[in-house]
Amino acid sequence: MTDRDKVEAALVVIGNEILSGRTQDRNIAFLGKALGEIGIMLAQVRIVPDRFEDIIAAVNELRRRYAYVFTTGGIGPTHDDITAEAIARAFGVPLHHHPEAMAILEAYYRKGEFNEARQRMARTPLGAVLVENPVSKAPGFRMENVYSFAGIPAVMQAMFKSIRHELGGGARMLSATVPTALAEGDIADRLEAIQKKYPDVEIGSYPYYQKGRYGTNIVLRATNSERLKAAEDEVKKLSSPL
Amino acid sequence: MTDRDKVEAALVVIGNEILSGRTQDRNIAFLGKALGEIGIMLAQVRIVPDRFEDIIAAVNELRRRYAYVFTTGGIGPTHDDITAEAIARAFGVPLHHHPEAMAILEAYYRKGEFNEARQRMARTPLGAVLVENPVSKAPGFRMENVYSFAGIPAVMQAMFKSIRHELGGGARMLSATVPTALAEGDIADRLEAIQKKYPDVEIGSYPYYQKGRYGTNIVLRATNSERLKAAEDEVKKLSSPL
Repeated sequence: MTDRDKVEAALVVIGNEILSGRTQDRNIAFLGKALGEIGIMLAQVRIVPDRFEDIIAAVNELRRRYAYVFTTGGIGPTHDDITAEAIARAFGVPLHHHPEAMAILEAYYRKGEFNEARQRMARTPLGAVLVENPVSKAPGFRMENVYSFAGIPAVMQAMFKSIRHELGGGARMLSATVPTALAEGDIADRLEAIQKKYPDVEIGSYPYYQKGRYGTNIVLRATNSERLKAAEDEVKKLSSPL
Repeated sequence: MTDRDKVEAALVVIGNEILSGRTQDRNIAFLGKALGEIGIMLAQVRIVPDRFEDIIAAVNELRRRYAYVFTTGGIGPTHDDITAEAIARAFGVPLHHHPEAMAILEAYYRKGEFNEARQRMARTPLGAVLVENPVSKAPGFRMENVYSFAGIPAVMQAMFKSIRHELGGGARMLSATVPTALAEGDIADRLEAIQKKYPDVEIGSYPYYQKGRYGTNIVLRATNSERLKAAEDEVKKLSSPL
């Protein structure tokens, strides 16, 4: 795998409820998997509170470093939904009521329901492009390489699917898992030797602990299927008697 | 709540398996809750791959900013376990085989089992203090305000419990949740008015979407129980007929 094939992305999860442990995040694993399927590596995640300084710092650092940045959360109608304003500040552009978003929401709500609070959901940084929300209409938006999605997993996933075709991936990452009942410490040396022999295959060792017993799952990842298979075959031999 | 009462911490989750979506993280929510119970706010999380540059950058930035930094993952015996070395580099100190950790592991393993790979688990940055691991012995460690724990949730939680008494918390955060079947957009204005009246109570609005219906959970957090109760009572009135 050459560096030219490597496309990396980052995710900023915005929300006090994830940090306090009240809500178990489900967007990280979804995005990691979904990006992997189109040849993009989720290379960093930051979870930050609903505070302007934290959101702005994370977005500005990551958007310069990664091909794509995604944010989840904070695009609803309440006072703690500050993502649109934070992204506008990060890019140094004004916040406005996006005309297309206003039209979508006006058509969606019954007469009288489209109040000032709901109009907040039409706010985007000036210059942003909308991201379709097939579930509940209120759109996400994209500013350059930064996509802002809702936090509710069903809505977030639908938004990702509406823009997936826009993303340019690298070579697709293939993977294989070899489960073993061996302790990591018993195979570490031989595993390292295999890793050295296959520098183009990423070999991860993931111990587990269940019912009082340890075991290890070996996960191999590579873009070349033949090299992956060759390394997998060598890892499988680790389970055989020495 | 004064700033003097506010103690903030950060977490660095180290592991490609979380980023790829292969493994669903369970340490973030645990730590967020456990810290909240002793008056410490988990204020930022970073998930980084098993790469020196990423781990070092995250640890060095966060340890200067937050009272405590925790890391999870990467302290096992295999080639992809690079946390101890990364923390040593972050602090600019050598990595060594910690004598006390060597003694603990030597006593734990049967003769012949304590091989070179397992001795990797005794490596810490020079000057680190061990963190007890009551589950599987191989210890975590602390360098100044940075605690490094195992990634396996059962082990991570046991390690946290062994050092919890060392952590100096602020005033304990109390919380109350008011579930409503109302849409966020219908209560946003009145909720904002309550937030303005109670600046010392953090009011979060969390929409949910289940079985085709939206609703909103309002979560209130404060250190003063009387103020929390007063704000909660006002939020409860939102569900009453206008």
